[in-house]
Amino acid sequence: MAQVTLDALNRTDAAGFTEALGEIFEHSPWVAAAVADKRPFASLQALLDAMAAAVKLAPAVQQTALMRAHPDLAGKAARAGEMTTASVAEQSSAGLDRLSDAEFADFHRLNDAYRDKFGIPFIVCVRRHTKGSILRSFAERLAHGPVAEHAAALAEIFRIAALRLDATVDAPERLKVHGHLSTHVLDTAQGRPAAGVAVSLIELSTGAEIAKAVTNADGRTDTPLIAGRPVPIGTYELRFAVGDYFRAAAVADPPFLDIVPLRFSVAEPEGYYHVPLLVSPWAYSTYRGS
Amino acid sequence: MAQVTLDALNRTDAAGFTEALGEIFEHSPWVAAAVADKRPFASLQALLDAMAAAVKLAPAVQQTALMRAHPDLAGKAARAGEMTTASVAEQSSAGLDRLSDAEFADFHRLNDAYRDKFGIPFIVCVRRHTKGSILRSFAERLAHGPVAEHAAALAEIFRIAALRLDATVDAPERLKVHGHLSTHVLDTAQGRPAAGVAVSLIELSTGAEIAKAVTNADGRTDTPLIAGRPVPIGTYELRFAVGDYFRAAAVADPPFLDIVPLRFSVAEPEGYYHVPLLVSPWAYSTYRGS
Amino acid sequence: MAQVTLDALNRTDAAGFTEALGEIFEHSPWVAAAVADKRPFASLQALLDAMAAAVKLAPAVQQTALMRAHPDLAGKAARAGEMTTASVAEQSSAGLDRLSDAEFADFHRLNDAYRDKFGIPFIVCVRRHTKGSILRSFAERLAHGPVAEHAAALAEIFRIAALRLDATVDAPERLKVHGHLSTHVLDTAQGRPAAGVAVSLIELSTGAEIAKAVTNADGRTDTPLIAGRPVPIGTYELRFAVGDYFRAAAVADPPFLDIVPLRFSVAEPEGYYHVPLLVSPWAYSTYRGS
Amino acid sequence: MAQVTLDALNRTDAAGFTEALGEIFEHSPWVAAAVADKRPFASLQALLDAMAAAVKLAPAVQQTALMRAHPDLAGKAARAGEMTTASVAEQSSAGLDRLSDAEFADFHRLNDAYRDKFGIPFIVCVRRHTKGSILRSFAERLAHGPVAEHAAALAEIFRIAALRLDATVDAPERLKVHGHLSTHVLDTAQGRPAAGVAVSLIELSTGAEIAKAVTNADGRTDTPLIAGRPVPIGTYELRFAVGDYFRAAAVADPPFLDIVPLRFSVAEPEGYYHVPLLVSPWAYSTYRGS
Repeated sequence: MAQVTLDALNRTDAAGFTEALGEIFEHSPWVAAAVADKRPFASLQALLDAMAAAVKLAPAVQQTALMRAHPDLAGKAARAGEMTTASVAEQSSAGLDRLSDAEFADFHRLNDAYRDKFGIPFIVCVRRHTKGSILRSFAERLAHGPVAEHAAALAEIFRIAALRLDATVDAPERLKVHGHLSTHVLDTAQGRPAAGVAVSLIELSTGAEIAKAVTNADGRTDTPLIAGRPVPIGTYELRFAVGDYFRAAAVADPPFLDIVPLRFSVAEPEGYYHVPLLVSPWAYSTYRGS
Repeated sequence: MAQVTLDALNRTDAAGFTEALGEIFEHSPWVAAAVADKRPFASLQALLDAMAAAVKLAPAVQQTALMRAHPDLAGKAARAGEMTTASVAEQSSAGLDRLSDAEFADFHRLNDAYRDKFGIPFIVCVRRHTKGSILRSFAERLAHGPVAEHAAALAEIFRIAALRLDATVDAPERLKVHGHLSTHVLDTAQGRPAAGVAVSLIELSTGAEIAKAVTNADGRTDTPLIAGRPVPIGTYELRFAVGDYFRAAAVADPPFLDIVPLRFSVAEPEGYYHVPLLVSPWAYSTYRGS
Repeated sequence: MAQVTLDALNRTDAAGFTEALGEIFEHSPWVAAAVADKRPFASLQALLDAMAAAVKLAPAVQQTALMRAHPDLAGKAARAGEMTTASVAEQSSAGLDRLSDAEFADFHRLNDAYRDKFGIPFIVCVRRHTKGSILRSFAERLAHGPVAEHAAALAEIFRIAALRLDATVDAPERLKVHGHLSTHVLDTAQGRPAAGVAVSLIELSTGAEIAKAVTNADGRTDTPLIAGRPVPIGTYELRFAVGDYFRAAAVADPPFLDIVPLRFSVAEPEGYYHVPLLVSPWAYSTYRGS
Repeated sequence: MAQVTLDALNRTDAAGFTEALGEIFEHSPWVAAAVADKRPFASLQALLDAMAAAVKLAPAVQQTALMRAHPDLAGKAARAGEMTTASVAEQSSAGLDRLSDAEFADFHRLNDAYRDKFGIPFIVCVRRHTKGSILRSFAERLAHGPVAEHAAALAEIFRIAALRLDATVDAPERLKVHGHLSTHVLDTAQGRPAAGVAVSLIELSTGAEIAKAVTNADGRTDTPLIAGRPVPIGTYELRFAVGDYFRAAAVADPPFLDIVPLRFSVAEPEGYYHVPLLVSPWAYSTYRGS
């Protein structure tokens, strides 16, 4: 998506401003319109705060309309091609466009139960989640009372808006909406970085390989495994092909260590996760690093 | 199986001796008969060595007949109920009685290729193997020339005989045919053994859970995960439910570590494998211990 | 010291009983005499409990006399040869017989201050302590009020009595007065126990080497570094000559790791301390094990 | 020392050039003079290489004169204040100005033995060494034959020149004469960097504390422990006050871990040494990192 600068947004007319930010809140350009005359905004965060304040100050019926403007997760709108481009990309990020028929039926059933109870679709900031965490979140939020759930839905809408704003507007100071996931392989038998180790990152609730790389001379991947976006809440497995790396040193066939899996969970999508591997042909360690 | 003592075998008549050990070599009581007058045997190893020597000294045609007395792996004899009781139990140990149709077809094809090339069934000491290592071994041995493969088949027959002898005869000094696999969980955040951790051992070529236990007050399982038998050649995953164990200490939901998998391979079925886990809510290590 | 059995003590006459146990409480055979007619004792613990009860029931003046029967720590009695054999051995165990003149003056000053304040000598179960922990304990107890300190002194007297009883009387069930300190060296570069590693145990408050050993084929010392006695409260350094062990694997001169020191403290003299070393030429770990 | 730029050196007249670099080789401005007309030099390395070539091409008698221009290590010149400023600073860096009388006598004896054998003073690039490694080097080089030792002395002279050139001349591309020593403390009980840990770096041959710092919010020291200079060949102990750091979490008094010493040796003064500590109240690890 071509980005507009915050400076340009501050200088354009109200119509241009509203058009540029019309889909930051799903099908709800009135939110942008409501803050157009509060310009100039000193920062992206100030702009986001103003838009969130406009939503909070809106009448309940308008808030509910905003909520209802959101598509069902993995719903019929997706299959019918009726979602916004942003929603399509968001739902794809968690694999919700690749559900089995049984999973599709599960989501359908949860969506219906949620709508029956709260009168709105289930809204969640999908880019911060995996299929597994969405299902867990669904179950937790179905147990809410209406007041708590209204607040939860709003909070998710603001998280979605923050990510869309981050993707749409270029500003010197970024929103804090990105996380970080990286690794580092040290060869403790030889006292040096392990170069040339194939690394694969699996998201376990879908089984999808979401990143792969080979370590460089410093034992790191050339770029972080995840950066510039949230690290979705969920459970991951990093798999390191240390058997191939240690082939020369192997004294047994099969070697004691071949593929080393490190399994860990992410709870803070905006967090910094560094998960190194210290490894010899016979031993390994990991820890949450910094 | 009711055991007979080595002492009793040394004292009985030749017919009784041959009957007791008639199936140590598959459908081939002549091996036992050939060593009956070499009694008394000072040890189980001496008995095994004598039987192996009798096989090695036998004419080629008799060796080939011994080889042909073995059933196909995962073959029709199994499905038709025509194998010795020992063979049935052995093949079951590696999961060869629970193959999918595709796997059954694979084995059938390999068996045929092997018989076409060498004129004998593929013989392997199944208790020392997993489905994965059998398939790997099949491929390696199909590449052999006839002399090397004749020797390989004999070596496997002697390994099978050793395990049958170990199961059949009680003697003060045992044959060295057993391996050991154990674990131990230390809580490095609290400096003490981790008690009450659920542990599961998965054999990865079949995906079967072959042992499960809960750690005791010393952080160990009450009995080793594998003892009193070979540790089959293959790749394993130990899975530790540390998330449940650390529940009270959890500061994030989901916790950083939940199920910790340790993946390692076994190359020496008679070896001693101790695979401990040192773990805090945020870090873990393992190593081949002793 | 030649041991007497609990059974024999239960069967001898009162005079013999009192003579055998007359020095369990320093220069105070009246304690043994007071429990002679409570025989037979089912266990060493029952005997100890009875003797402790007799002391607790004694008039205050007699308790004070018992306390005053104890020698000063590192005091003039030691230099003048007027202590019981047991006291001599006990004070030597913490190095109190090898003080510098300055340290001797320190102890003298503390002893005097303590006597001035409480009217009794400073009593501590020296076998559970190091010079460092005695000095720390001295400072802490000087801050006590008289009631708390009377209780503290009695508790130490009972600890001394327990160790003397353990050394004097043979019984099937032992008193729980011993601790344990052991180590284990694993070579994580080669996946096996590290044999032939020289290990030295230093008590840091005196700098004395209190144990030394070489690891055996299992990477352990043939006997624990400390067993059959309390592990004195204090700070220790285990030093492992891994540079010599890894000499063949050394790729740099000097090697990255040569002497590896592990420094740790002991707070529970009756505790089980297992302090292993996992080491490659470039990395090491330790932990309180079990 | 005020630095001159390489560019200025390339542009000044020959006399200015020679004056600026007259002490790069001890008391031997002829080396600079010999390369003045080879200017301009494209890099510091090219300048160093030219000066080294001039020394290598000089007649043997002039090389010997250059060697004899160097002071004795820890010699009378030092005590008499007759050394160049550079030599004074260099010898101080290894603690050679703070020797005990016995050590001074040792050096004197070694110097005399060396002069008797080779007819020159013992020359070593002191900034790359510790007292311990100098003494070891002394012993090794005394065993040389004259040809090997002549080459060894020249190599040290070039190392000294490289460091002096690096300190004297400012150029865009630096000489590779600096090493790096840093640390990092991770709290594996809490899964985050350990902030506020006091760290001390001891050089063991002199016992001198050569750096001290407190870890920052990222668990690192604000600047590396050693940077911008060689890491002297020798053995070091990093000491971390983890007992104070974990005070709140302490469950025993004294805590199991208080001061954690990591002991390691440096063989390559221009190398990159990162020595992290992963630590809980009950366990720790280290490794040569990157």
